[in-house]
Amino acid sequence: MRIVVLAGGIGGARFLRGLKQAAPDADVTVIGNTGDDIHLFGLKVCPDLDTVMYTLGGGINEEQGWGRLDETFQVKAELAAYGVGPEWFGLGDRDFATHIVRTQMLGAGYPLSAVTEALCARWKPGVRLLPMSDDRVETHVAIEVDGERQAVHFQEYWVKLRASVDAQAVVPVGAEQAKPAPGVLEAIAAADVILFPPSNPVVSIGTILAVPGIREAIAEAGVPVVGLSPIVGDAPVRGMADKVLAAIGVEATAAAVALHYGSGLLDGWLVDTVDASSVPAIEAAGIRSRAVPLMMSDADTTAAMAREALALAEEVRA
Amino acid sequence: MRIVVLAGGIGGARFLRGLKQAAPDADVTVIGNTGDDIHLFGLKVCPDLDTVMYTLGGGINEEQGWGRLDETFQVKAELAAYGVGPEWFGLGDRDFATHIVRTQMLGAGYPLSAVTEALCARWKPGVRLLPMSDDRVETHVAIEVDGERQAVHFQEYWVKLRASVDAQAVVPVGAEQAKPAPGVLEAIAAADVILFPPSNPVVSIGTILAVPGIREAIAEAGVPVVGLSPIVGDAPVRGMADKVLAAIGVEATAAAVALHYGSGLLDGWLVDTVDASSVPAIEAAGIRSRAVPLMMSDADTTAAMAREALALAEEVRA
Repeated sequence: MRIVVLAGGIGGARFLRGLKQAAPDADVTVIGNTGDDIHLFGLKVCPDLDTVMYTLGGGINEEQGWGRLDETFQVKAELAAYGVGPEWFGLGDRDFATHIVRTQMLGAGYPLSAVTEALCARWKPGVRLLPMSDDRVETHVAIEVDGERQAVHFQEYWVKLRASVDAQAVVPVGAEQAKPAPGVLEAIAAADVILFPPSNPVVSIGTILAVPGIREAIAEAGVPVVGLSPIVGDAPVRGMADKVLAAIGVEATAAAVALHYGSGLLDGWLVDTVDASSVPAIEAAGIRSRAVPLMMSDADTTAAMAREALALAEEVRA
Repeated sequence: MRIVVLAGGIGGARFLRGLKQAAPDADVTVIGNTGDDIHLFGLKVCPDLDTVMYTLGGGINEEQGWGRLDETFQVKAELAAYGVGPEWFGLGDRDFATHIVRTQMLGAGYPLSAVTEALCARWKPGVRLLPMSDDRVETHVAIEVDGERQAVHFQEYWVKLRASVDAQAVVPVGAEQAKPAPGVLEAIAAADVILFPPSNPVVSIGTILAVPGIREAIAEAGVPVVGLSPIVGDAPVRGMADKVLAAIGVEATAAAVALHYGSGLLDGWLVDTVDASSVPAIEAAGIRSRAVPLMMSDADTTAAMAREALALAEEVRA
């Protein structure tokens, strides 16, 4: 079975680990969000791709969900001693090596997709990890500070400001001109199932879908497209998805997110058992829906979620 | 008193520390060798500038003479895990931060001289440290491997091969097109004394002198130019200077190095007491010479060397 998964960072990575356990023989291609990418200290940092790579490759800091296991912070301390920031982004020494290799390869002319493949040759994530695009796309968030509208990089909004001010707009800068990375459209066309993990519907999956051609390819693939709600009981499971949902006028509910994707894209949608009452409304909109436990508390519950998603896909297909 | 010092790495840095102790009120400008510079992992590494900066700023690893105190090597280990080399160049985590800041600033368009000034704002070396040039100069060494002549970067010859094969030629690639960095010629013209520390006469001081304009400015400055022999008892005090001296047809003796610089450039030359017998020959060539202890075993003996160099300069002037 060929499965294509659109993934952001922590939520996507953990779901993928469950999926690998649930379907060990599946051929999984991950289309990773690169709108979170940022240049820090002259280095190209791809937080979502790395979170997937480290999580599936056994190198992740489990507790925080991102960054490396057994990390140290000498480089960061030295940069601070030079007065060079930002200090709000937690890059550890081991993690720095990844960004150094990536930046060196990009500088030598390799596209991000080739760089990602090279990095994965070490981590062996057990999936094919593709960036959504080799072109630079950078999600910016419009906020208001002292009555003045400003645009800040997504990471500044998310990590530095902790989404503490309202997002007035979320713009994937460069997306319109971006092309899907080599292999992305081919993987979608060849897929048996396409899954949206409980990743952020705006800044993760929404950004991937903003690359011209990807949304259309998914809609036209003619295979079940099934998602899992990142909203449980009217609140994001993790992160601050409600903040960016508000920016695009979508309520932070499991049903509203499903309707936002829409039946033109989505065939099935899993909501948590606490949101079971929203199933009829989702189904009325033409999206098959089931209520199952959606908390990724450990590997087994996450694998169970993946099995439910694959079962719903088969139901849709039949 | 305004003193200009041409410096390589370890020898130059240690001499400068002695000079600061010997002449605490002097206004010292250091013209640093950049021919050893190398791009590693996409980062610009300036070993000689950094050795001077770390040594005078209190951040040097005293035992090895280069690199940072209390260093760790996580980044390097990770790069090796990615299969990315070279592994023979010992970059530590703290040191990496310096190269990251430098590379970022160079990428933003700052010349190396401005970058060096910014880095020194942290280290406060107590001297004005100038790279010899903002232009790229890279010392290459011609060697013969299996009957084939090859050119390798100086660091590859020095650090990887440990100068274990004969150097057939030493070429400061790019020197002919390089311009002295801003401030270099002005500092020389304004100097009261110019010193050559016991740095490598070929790949350190020789490279600085290969930048068009610097040698001429020193020769025409009209102030005492005094050097200290890096060769003691027919052997280099440290390093493998004999290997690169052979490549340019100069004997590894205190006298031969003095004659190599020549009386057109050099006014005074200190040799070690074990080489006292060479003083007459050096003086016969028109270079005033004295035999004094030249081993930089500790701060006090190094300061004494610096005082001897300044005393010889005053003798020359009088």
